[in-house]
Amino acid sequence: MPNYHKPESKTVQELKDMANRLRIHSITSTQASKSGHPTSCSSIAEIMSVLFFNTMRYKLSEPRDPSSDRLILSKGHSAPILYAAWAEAGLFPVSELQNLRKIDSDLEGHPTPRLNFIDVGTGSLGQGVAVGCGMAYVGKHYDKADYRTYVIVGDGESAEGSIWESLHFAGHYKLDNLCVIFDVNRLGQSEPTSLQHRLDIYKARLDAFGFNAIVVDGHDVEELCKAFFEAANTKSQPTAIIAKTFKGKFFPNIEDLDNWHGKPLGDKAAETIAYLEGLIKNKTLSLKPQAPKGAVQQNNITNIHLATPPEYKLGETVATRLAYGTALAKIAVNNSHVIALDGDTKNSTFSDKLKKAFPERYIECFIAEQNLVGVTIGAACRDRTVAFASTFATFFTRAFDQIRMGAISQTNANFVGSHCGVSIGEDGPSQMGLEDIAMFRAVPGSTIFYPSDAVSCERSVELAANTKGICFIRTSRPNTAVIYNNNEKFEIGKGKLVKKSDKDQVLLIGAGITLYEALTAAAELEKSGVSARVFDPFTIKPLDRAAIVQNAQECGGRIVVVEDHYKEGGLGEAVMAAVADQRNIVVKHLAVPKVPRSGPPTVLIDMFGISSRHIISNVAEILKL
Amino acid sequence: MPNYHKPESKTVQELKDMANRLRIHSITSTQASKSGHPTSCSSIAEIMSVLFFNTMRYKLSEPRDPSSDRLILSKGHSAPILYAAWAEAGLFPVSELQNLRKIDSDLEGHPTPRLNFIDVGTGSLGQGVAVGCGMAYVGKHYDKADYRTYVIVGDGESAEGSIWESLHFAGHYKLDNLCVIFDVNRLGQSEPTSLQHRLDIYKARLDAFGFNAIVVDGHDVEELCKAFFEAANTKSQPTAIIAKTFKGKFFPNIEDLDNWHGKPLGDKAAETIAYLEGLIKNKTLSLKPQAPKGAVQQNNITNIHLATPPEYKLGETVATRLAYGTALAKIAVNNSHVIALDGDTKNSTFSDKLKKAFPERYIECFIAEQNLVGVTIGAACRDRTVAFASTFATFFTRAFDQIRMGAISQTNANFVGSHCGVSIGEDGPSQMGLEDIAMFRAVPGSTIFYPSDAVSCERSVELAANTKGICFIRTSRPNTAVIYNNNEKFEIGKGKLVKKSDKDQVLLIGAGITLYEALTAAAELEKSGVSARVFDPFTIKPLDRAAIVQNAQECGGRIVVVEDHYKEGGLGEAVMAAVADQRNIVVKHLAVPKVPRSGPPTVLIDMFGISSRHIISNVAEILKL
Repeated sequence: MPNYHKPESKTVQELKDMANRLRIHSITSTQASKSGHPTSCSSIAEIMSVLFFNTMRYKLSEPRDPSSDRLILSKGHSAPILYAAWAEAGLFPVSELQNLRKIDSDLEGHPTPRLNFIDVGTGSLGQGVAVGCGMAYVGKHYDKADYRTYVIVGDGESAEGSIWESLHFAGHYKLDNLCVIFDVNRLGQSEPTSLQHRLDIYKARLDAFGFNAIVVDGHDVEELCKAFFEAANTKSQPTAIIAKTFKGKFFPNIEDLDNWHGKPLGDKAAETIAYLEGLIKNKTLSLKPQAPKGAVQQNNITNIHLATPPEYKLGETVATRLAYGTALAKIAVNNSHVIALDGDTKNSTFSDKLKKAFPERYIECFIAEQNLVGVTIGAACRDRTVAFASTFATFFTRAFDQIRMGAISQTNANFVGSHCGVSIGEDGPSQMGLEDIAMFRAVPGSTIFYPSDAVSCERSVELAANTKGICFIRTSRPNTAVIYNNNEKFEIGKGKLVKKSDKDQVLLIGAGITLYEALTAAAELEKSGVSARVFDPFTIKPLDRAAIVQNAQECGGRIVVVEDHYKEGGLGEAVMAAVADQRNIVVKHLAVPKVPRSGPPTVLIDMFGISSRHIISNVAEILKL
Repeated sequence: MPNYHKPESKTVQELKDMANRLRIHSITSTQASKSGHPTSCSSIAEIMSVLFFNTMRYKLSEPRDPSSDRLILSKGHSAPILYAAWAEAGLFPVSELQNLRKIDSDLEGHPTPRLNFIDVGTGSLGQGVAVGCGMAYVGKHYDKADYRTYVIVGDGESAEGSIWESLHFAGHYKLDNLCVIFDVNRLGQSEPTSLQHRLDIYKARLDAFGFNAIVVDGHDVEELCKAFFEAANTKSQPTAIIAKTFKGKFFPNIEDLDNWHGKPLGDKAAETIAYLEGLIKNKTLSLKPQAPKGAVQQNNITNIHLATPPEYKLGETVATRLAYGTALAKIAVNNSHVIALDGDTKNSTFSDKLKKAFPERYIECFIAEQNLVGVTIGAACRDRTVAFASTFATFFTRAFDQIRMGAISQTNANFVGSHCGVSIGEDGPSQMGLEDIAMFRAVPGSTIFYPSDAVSCERSVELAANTKGICFIRTSRPNTAVIYNNNEKFEIGKGKLVKKSDKDQVLLIGAGITLYEALTAAAELEKSGVSARVFDPFTIKPLDRAAIVQNAQECGGRIVVVEDHYKEGGLGEAVMAAVADQRNIVVKHLAVPKVPRSGPPTVLIDMFGISSRHIISNVAEILKL
């Protein structure tokens, strides 16, 4: 490790002064907004001062330049001091801080990427370390650059298990470009934290999780400067800085006291500001941010294509989960930024096909789905990668909060869930994705692919790679027949008619396994003189509303929609929403009505009401309407 | 600690023999089902043998008797050996094990409470410790009984952060009646675990998390007997038994090898069984389960009532979140089994009202929502408590997987989510519940209350306390006017008409804050000669379909539904589903269309399209349909 040179005493005093300036901004901005968390800001004032004016390297002209260090304020409720630090660094006038939380300001209550200096939204606690891990992994292994990643975690939020998943990941992959700062200010929202100021316990835990764990006085700028230096010069290990701090530090009669969480100081603001001003020695500060050491190039992550088109024979049976793996390896051929991540299910989801083709572009996240999603969001940030994360569809429920925050973070990430529905069979309900469409539909700006055959699945992967926002691809376990030609064109929001005649009396809509049940039902119905049209929506969100309305109208206003999913929030309700403003269209909906069980797939499909037999009986009923 | 007497050598040999019998059953049952995880069973064979025939105390006549020790197989994929142990204990004939995973057998692929010896479903990894914590907390603090709780965790799943949340909880509350066994068999599904056989790291982590951590050879029955004895006699600390094991132990040419996860032994079964039979010394075993030490009474958790009826004045403004706290304290008065849990938001959700009234019946779970939900499920198990868990509505997304598994577990638990929708205002989107209804609707058997005023909120709490399955109560942050009389009766699945005339032309449906927007819109519309009916659904699931259809028909087949939630999966789509089979009913749906932002509540309600102004313009449009 190089020798550490401590900052000059002038700089030390200026860093202290800056910390108190940031405190004052935190007070005045939350006074203006009449809400916010000034005491939670105060505990990290010295940490922010040192990070912004001694430690971090960043481009003020373009905060999200790939060469800049990353900073994630995992304890997002301390947003006012983050905004204050950027203002003091010179990104925007400090006067703007008074617009905190106003409707026409992007200085929101918790940080979001509406601001050009924020990479990801925070505010749901315990998610910052995972995102930081993704950034650090990319920095170390893909960019091979010297930018560093800093994450500030509150002690309250360190109770979140997601933090420990991510710490384990960072330790396992020896992410020495990651530094996690624990702001141990002793007080939670409604009572003291469970560990209060037991820094020894934090240290023992972090040591055991593979970190270089350093305990510091979080209000001592010299100790902080030294600890960050040590972090930057520690190899093969991430560093944790465990900072003993006080909530409301330097706020007289507020510091370290209960019942001051999430409250502006009100009538105590003036005296507190006066006190802080008394601590400040220099009216003007000469502190300046440091520029990044070297340039990091922008990545081209657009225009990604399957290296070769789908190669299947019509009627051949292939599981869409397998086609996913095939397509993933194909889109990776011509773009080195395509990566895959999985949670120890790669031989089930077939993400292992990418690992086999490009071992270094696969990140094993083990059985920790929250971290899997967080790392994916981090890896995709600043357009550094085109990331595909896979596990069983239902296990993404583990990371709903991370996915939800991903939408707020304006993330471009692709999630692929295999093993959907009762059609997985004997493993039983704990393994069946039966609420995954409902979950991903409720994510703003999401795109949901539900390919029914191998050809459309390969095209789903290609389209997802080029689509902004959160994409979800739902793949199935059973083999299904190839029904599209290899040169069939697919578009987001455009479904396919797979069976049609001029005399159709009902429109059947299915996807995945139920599309085949619909086709079987249509063939049976034909024998009894009932003509049914069959529609494959391809994407569930956006849904091809125009085609559904038009075809339903052509089929007597009758729709039977069938899905291997619970009744709520899935394809069925998406179809109902598409036709809700139409008089004279009725919908019958077949879906899994309750917790299913173990058994052979075909038996389950019938037992839970989504087989061709049930479609046929529902067609008989709807023909009466 | 009392002196440890090691078992007689005859018993030791029988425990070894039993372990190998259990291995054979695991092989033959998975051969019969042609799927399953025999190698994951084999690594815990000695652990199961010792638990069932040396350590645990349970009533074979009634496995779920409250006096019996609890066992949670968190690594649920090892179900076959759990079933085998119960069969060998005498609960059912071993021949039934051959029905594993069959459609007409309850011996499912992963354990579920369809079986009378299973408390909770497992199979989504990393959830067992939280449930065990809930059971152990109740055993120690409420039942004050000597039953013990055992949880078997796989090493692969110990990567789940949820495990570490729960370990921290157990350590913090000194749950010395809890014993967590880590089956460190080195191999995950698709590759070795990240820590492989680094038992020292497991021990360091568990020590740091407050456990009495004991490393043992997991295939040595004597070491196991001793460790369980030590666990039972350790005070003020939970125990972790870190068992070094091998996946496929005693399966020649399979033991400790990759690529044997989740596969029956196929053509290697016969030779493996022959090898295991060669290890067995005693053809007949004299092992018998031990009975519980003392009786634990059944709890009466039925017929719970508000101690006093709601006491509000019509027109008075009260937040439903506050009414929740009031009601919670009231239902706790006459039933000592009512408890509350929260994740450090008790002063926002108002669960602190229960804590103030009955401090010992409040469990602080700190900021760890997965554990919060798991502890709640565990605490509610075997009817030991009537549990209400609260946090911000959106933070339940953190525990969607736990809630989903709760439905499989047939749990009776109540979740209360405050701070729904954009109406929370300045804190911004990370804190707004905008997908919570979609999530809870997609949980089988759930009941969703969305009270709009304080009176209906109090009744929601009372009804939820008496309702089986998962209940969710959505509460709001803003104060809203009391619109119901204190003696108004509420029923699940029955809505209320809050405004009606004979000449209504449109039915407005709202809940919470949007019910008031609908009322405002109706009053405005009346001025321009348009008569609108207003409906409060009270429960979103089940929804009062009959009333909605009838009232819509009476209003020209026109519905405008408005909700403070994203468009997908919420009240709007629930209404569409209710009228889907009706020709001549059309629905306009107003909901939050994208990620919102920080701002004043009333401004946000208007900006995101759910204010009275938007209702009025949509009524104008729907009148044309």
